Amino acid sequence: MHITRTGAGATHTAWDRTIEPIAEVEPGAELTVETLESSGGQLTAGSAAAELTGLDFGRINPVTGPFRIAGARPGDALVVDILEMATGSWGWTGCIPGFGLLAEDFPEPHLRISKIGPDSAELLPGLSVPVLPMVGTIGTAPPEDGPHSMVPPRRWGGNMDIRHVGPGARLVLPVGVEGALLSLGDVHAAMGDGEVSGTGVETDGTVRLRIGLRPGEAPATPFLETSERAQRTGRALATTGIGPDLMAASKEATRALIEEVVRRTGLAAEDAYLLASVAADLKISEVVDVPNWVVSAHLQLSLLDG
Amino acid sequence: MHITRTGAGATHTAWDRTIEPIAEVEPGAELTVETLESSGGQLTAGSAAAELTGLDFGRINPVTGPFRIAGARPGDALVVDILEMATGSWGWTGCIPGFGLLAEDFPEPHLRISKIGPDSAELLPGLSVPVLPMVGTIGTAPPEDGPHSMVPPRRWGGNMDIRHVGPGARLVLPVGVEGALLSLGDVHAAMGDGEVSGTGVETDGTVRLRIGLRPGEAPATPFLETSERAQRTGRALATTGIGPDLMAASKEATRALIEEVVRRTGLAAEDAYLLASVAADLKISEVVDVPNWVVSAHLQLSLLDG
Repeated sequence: MHITRTGAGATHTAWDRTIEPIAEVEPGAELTVETLESSGGQLTAGSAAAELTGLDFGRINPVTGPFRIAGARPGDALVVDILEMATGSWGWTGCIPGFGLLAEDFPEPHLRISKIGPDSAELLPGLSVPVLPMVGTIGTAPPEDGPHSMVPPRRWGGNMDIRHVGPGARLVLPVGVEGALLSLGDVHAAMGDGEVSGTGVETDGTVRLRIGLRPGEAPATPFLETSERAQRTGRALATTGIGPDLMAASKEATRALIEEVVRRTGLAAEDAYLLASVAADLKISEVVDVPNWVVSAHLQLSLLDG
Repeated sequence: MHITRTGAGATHTAWDRTIEPIAEVEPGAELTVETLESSGGQLTAGSAAAELTGLDFGRINPVTGPFRIAGARPGDALVVDILEMATGSWGWTGCIPGFGLLAEDFPEPHLRISKIGPDSAELLPGLSVPVLPMVGTIGTAPPEDGPHSMVPPRRWGGNMDIRHVGPGARLVLPVGVEGALLSLGDVHAAMGDGEVSGTGVETDGTVRLRIGLRPGEAPATPFLETSERAQRTGRALATTGIGPDLMAASKEATRALIEEVVRRTGLAAEDAYLLASVAADLKISEVVDVPNWVVSAHLQLSLLDG
């Protein structure tokens, strides 16, 4: 079975178990899902930074669906194989006032529109990042009465923003309601672990999936099997944050990365922040050497060669 | 210049600016440093798990040094190139009661002695992990009056346990005192990002370094340029922790990884915990989708093929 659904007219912007399914899918079936970029049409390839200030968060992260999975029951595991993805030809990345890991450092709106090619996206004039398409938001309907905001991820998945959920990956989600009610959207052409500005290269997408069901095997939280393609290669610049709080250490490592990128390249700090958001990976280096933990922020050195 | 120093008789177990240097090194010089495994000789290749209960933490993480760097002054950056490393022929990995990310789940001592080969270390009978040697503890003397415990890392480095500090990496440390007073030790044959049990494959080491100095360029926190060799390759199993606290999410992701490894392999949970500590990587997938963050724990699937 092969269904094509377009995001427009088939999307929702909150999780709610009472939303009517747009299609029913048999376990074992493939489907192709079109998705809208995460502003839901509020931004275009011609948008200016000021438009970020007025973003209506109620329209953020539209997901296509829900798809009712035939036979799925609470307590089952839904297995989603990401077979193939295509992105739009442009994407946006921004500092949204009040949003992002370093919201206090970057209070002004800042916007970059990328041209997206098959292998790389030009984030800044002359600075391209590798395209590693991924699905930012994918989940099943929570069993608790809704609506539930689309912004935070939950046990049922949703806006997890795991950059490894891309072609070749298998994602296993718990089923909380009859029919599972799977929805997805928020495709990124590129994103770093952490997504520090709160945005990747946000773009429209087309995602080909295969659906499977494992009765009674709902995991406590989603898990996945990643593809080889999602690995980073090459030498990286890695900065550190050290201290008793992982959030503070994440901010410290990210600030240090931005400063070092600015020092090496002359980029504006805002652009270095966006570069970190779409291409740098936050790793927990150690979380055991009491009382101080280490978070490190890794960015491929080849991106700074320009 | 090429100095060889042995760890025994040339080590210290606290950071203190008043410790007498064991040698002076000119910027530009290479040196070869022998280091002791992190129990400081309290454990041997024949040790039993019960010995972990009586570990004297005052003797933990002996570092070789300090090396006085000629001309180094507070405010300078010390550049350490890790040129080459060798490990001992055996290493230990353990659950130490009261220590580690999941100390509450694993209250009993548990110990595994690995035989270390050039490319892999046999952590469990029939289960080997790739050898990626690294320096767990490396730092300069804090300017504040000591002694300071060797356990937590600080702005001056120390027990950072960053698994990317291995052959081919360049580490940049701030200098806090005249002569910098560099010391290092705590070599691991393998470790995962996070080092969840609090131990890697702990082993003796020999580290060949080149020392450089950048006057007036002390970074706020240590940073590094990683080698390509430190990258993981291949597909991974990745579990998630989702919630408003990164520490709780780290625990949740690690517990989920242990459970899934146990389910797939039949390993004892204690052994799966050690496997995660030496081979799985904690990543911050997103730290912006308020109020819930995602931490994921990635383990190469090839390790589970048996």
